[in-house]
Amino acid sequence: METLKSYISGAWVAGTGKMATLVNPTTEEPVAQASTEGLDLGAAVAFARAEGGTALRALTFAQRGELIRAMSRTIHANRDALIELAIKNGGNTRSDAKFDIDGASGTLAAYADLGKELGDQRFLLDGEGVQLGRSPRFFGQHVSVPRHGVAVHVNAFNFPAWGLGEKAACALLAGVPVIVKPATSTALVAVRIVELIVAANILPRGALSLVTGSPGDLLTHLGGQDMLAFTGSSDTGAAIRLMGNIARGSVRVNVEADSLNGAILGPDAAQGSETYNLFLKDVVRDMTQKAGQKCTAIRRVFVPRDRLAEVRDDLVERLRDMKVGDPALEGVIVGPVATAQQLRDVRAGIERLAAEARIVLGGLGPFEKVGGLPDKGYFVPPTLLVNEAPEGARAVHEHEVFGPVSTVLPYDGTPALVSAVEKGGGGLVSSVYSDDRAFVADMVFGIAPFHGRLMLGSEKIADQTPGPGTVLPQLVHGGPGRAGGGEELGGLRGLAFYMQRTALQGARPMLDALLGVKR
Amino acid sequence: METLKSYISGAWVAGTGKMATLVNPTTEEPVAQASTEGLDLGAAVAFARAEGGTALRALTFAQRGELIRAMSRTIHANRDALIELAIKNGGNTRSDAKFDIDGASGTLAAYADLGKELGDQRFLLDGEGVQLGRSPRFFGQHVSVPRHGVAVHVNAFNFPAWGLGEKAACALLAGVPVIVKPATSTALVAVRIVELIVAANILPRGALSLVTGSPGDLLTHLGGQDMLAFTGSSDTGAAIRLMGNIARGSVRVNVEADSLNGAILGPDAAQGSETYNLFLKDVVRDMTQKAGQKCTAIRRVFVPRDRLAEVRDDLVERLRDMKVGDPALEGVIVGPVATAQQLRDVRAGIERLAAEARIVLGGLGPFEKVGGLPDKGYFVPPTLLVNEAPEGARAVHEHEVFGPVSTVLPYDGTPALVSAVEKGGGGLVSSVYSDDRAFVADMVFGIAPFHGRLMLGSEKIADQTPGPGTVLPQLVHGGPGRAGGGEELGGLRGLAFYMQRTALQGARPMLDALLGVKR
Repeated sequence: METLKSYISGAWVAGTGKMATLVNPTTEEPVAQASTEGLDLGAAVAFARAEGGTALRALTFAQRGELIRAMSRTIHANRDALIELAIKNGGNTRSDAKFDIDGASGTLAAYADLGKELGDQRFLLDGEGVQLGRSPRFFGQHVSVPRHGVAVHVNAFNFPAWGLGEKAACALLAGVPVIVKPATSTALVAVRIVELIVAANILPRGALSLVTGSPGDLLTHLGGQDMLAFTGSSDTGAAIRLMGNIARGSVRVNVEADSLNGAILGPDAAQGSETYNLFLKDVVRDMTQKAGQKCTAIRRVFVPRDRLAEVRDDLVERLRDMKVGDPALEGVIVGPVATAQQLRDVRAGIERLAAEARIVLGGLGPFEKVGGLPDKGYFVPPTLLVNEAPEGARAVHEHEVFGPVSTVLPYDGTPALVSAVEKGGGGLVSSVYSDDRAFVADMVFGIAPFHGRLMLGSEKIADQTPGPGTVLPQLVHGGPGRAGGGEELGGLRGLAFYMQRTALQGARPMLDALLGVKR
Repeated sequence: METLKSYISGAWVAGTGKMATLVNPTTEEPVAQASTEGLDLGAAVAFARAEGGTALRALTFAQRGELIRAMSRTIHANRDALIELAIKNGGNTRSDAKFDIDGASGTLAAYADLGKELGDQRFLLDGEGVQLGRSPRFFGQHVSVPRHGVAVHVNAFNFPAWGLGEKAACALLAGVPVIVKPATSTALVAVRIVELIVAANILPRGALSLVTGSPGDLLTHLGGQDMLAFTGSSDTGAAIRLMGNIARGSVRVNVEADSLNGAILGPDAAQGSETYNLFLKDVVRDMTQKAGQKCTAIRRVFVPRDRLAEVRDDLVERLRDMKVGDPALEGVIVGPVATAQQLRDVRAGIERLAAEARIVLGGLGPFEKVGGLPDKGYFVPPTLLVNEAPEGARAVHEHEVFGPVSTVLPYDGTPALVSAVEKGGGGLVSSVYSDDRAFVADMVFGIAPFHGRLMLGSEKIADQTPGPGTVLPQLVHGGPGRAGGGEELGGLRGLAFYMQRTALQGARPMLDALLGVKR
């Protein structure tokens, strides 16, 4: 069995001791193993800071953009091989795998373009300058410069490629070296991507490192110039924040965690309308794509109470056609969830939801599966619940079931709807399907404080929106409260986490000369 | 003795049980007492969120700005009475007290102006909109909306007025209610300010609350929409971050903590030059103003090695004239530090610095004091140290002595200087005194990542800069690493902490109508 290596301090090294095993979630067969035991992760952090940071800071944004473009191209050029790995280790269908891998190369390409746009500078001006004194001579100007630390990226198992790409794009463009720690269970794709980038000799020494397996003591080496971006469960996010060196050292932490994303059907979106069809399409896609394992997937479907039966029936009809089974087979839409633990968690989650709601499709019983061995694989059928009394319900608003599982909830009027959405305690994205501007306005200003992103589905864009589940490089990704309180991407906004904003105050001619500003 | 009250849930209430005693640091006489025992701080938080938050969000920025202007005017109208309290409870000289109180009214006025500028909106557009799809119809726009939580402001003892004013200005203008928790030891000024604002009936119910005394369980009631801005020691900052509900609930936390601010004399700034004199003036002011109890005060004075004796002598000469004593007396420049504990800490800190350096003025021995009883008061004379081997030194780079204490450190060349400044581990502000643009450029780009602000002192602005120790509302205040990793003020930037940035994606005509944008 292949032993996966880490790439640290400029070399590929394998850990020793007890290995974690990566499996094929369709067959449950082991596919690789990994360990970080015996690796000097403190030295890896110091190496990345010293070698990678210094090299990246010497480059302009345009030059860093070119490196990022080369990463994007390398991933795209190896798309087919990566898809095979994603099917094998991630339980991805071909379509799921493309979503992840093209997400990585697309986001990297977007940041390569941004680098080109930012051009031959090594720092950013932040906002307009401002007169500080009696005369215009005493002046202030904010600048953003790369921090001198390392960015550790602890990624989630569901997007081994995209998670790596979107986080690395922002850090590297900002001028900060990256140590990526993919989730061990699905690390195959991430490891292969780093191998390709290293083999193509794209980046300066130390700019990109890889820790494959347990994080070991990696996070204990972080300090006041370092950054830690984590995507995963709220519990792990909190545990990271509670580490002594993180809290005491003011390590910058970005957490992207649980989210009970809502899809809200407006009262005006009648059956058969483009807007209604978009709503159905988005809910079905989010429940089935990556077997529902997206942090942005719709978990709560809010519909006017008098439309409950109609929506339920329309969703059930469409979901029934979504074939579950071996993701390598054509026609299969829903592959397995990623690990045995995920399967246990999802099944326990369905039980928890079902204690307050009614299962109208799928659930814990037997179901039809295409291909594969009958008693193998971590499969869950698309499972739809209806909760007719969501005011008193708790689990549906608080417990993210990370599989092909959603609950339909009726609402009575906009204020009650806003308060029901709020019960999610902060989310990454919700979507509103309506062409009624007054309703959309009430919803947006009602629920925006609880979200990092709102997707407004309407007739006019029904043919071109990728749905709320797709994270776009131009828009921020993250959300308050339960969602972790973080923020990534959003074009230039995504660089702020990796840079220090510093106010400069002094004589205006001095500042202008220093910053190369022609006023 | 006066028992200070808290203003929570719309009423003035006194705690019970064991009281904390506020003293006059000049005479050590008790001046007031306070307790929060028995107060329902959970209800106070809920009241502020529900009543204050709802009322503030209903106002436009311009309307909130008017409230903030009224706060500023109320403080200014009662300046003389507040100065008396600051002398009595803070050990402030009249000049120290004005610095604090005018800082509060000035910062509030600046944010009142900003509110007027932002006008009749209730949310902010963030950046330009962006095309997301194949056609320009699918569009994205970021907006910032007020969070639905409460802002708890835990302020430091050194700026009871300014700390309250600068934090409240940003939160209230953003549309977020405030609970201010002044440091108990010097709370008199803050309590009086809140009394004045409440008596003038300026703010909506619940928009401003006051907790006087121990924070009790206040912070345990915070959740995912709440914000906590803390100014004080790194240890307390870390303890706050390590609270379970703060970490798990993704409560937004801003910490402004210890800082070993540097003043750097450029090799070109010759004795007698305007730039050199500005440098001397700033160091002396920062050591003596508020008895050195400013988070922005200069703690490390970096000078070219061959100028060490010259600078030392010039500083000693000026500092020798700074009279220490009863701050109520005319001519006294240096009042006492704020508390007996501060006195112990400062004296212990001087000992720690002196273990690695030489005291050339002041220190722990007897000194001349103007007025007051001989054996009373928490006085420390201006204390200057010289550390001739700063490379091996630790305390001078790591231990903030919060009193009239600075250390002069020689440097040999710019790279060594940059690395010596970095040893502070992240600071709020440093200042560079030079008219040599190449030297200034090397310093700025060398040390900017380690600072929230850099003051560039030069001939051209010598007559109008207030020095690095003055926090300006237009520029950010905060710093990475040891300084807490936070950021406040900076004009509009200061509102971001209190707002949720949300990406809206949808049909462009829908977004434009929703946001009132005319494109």
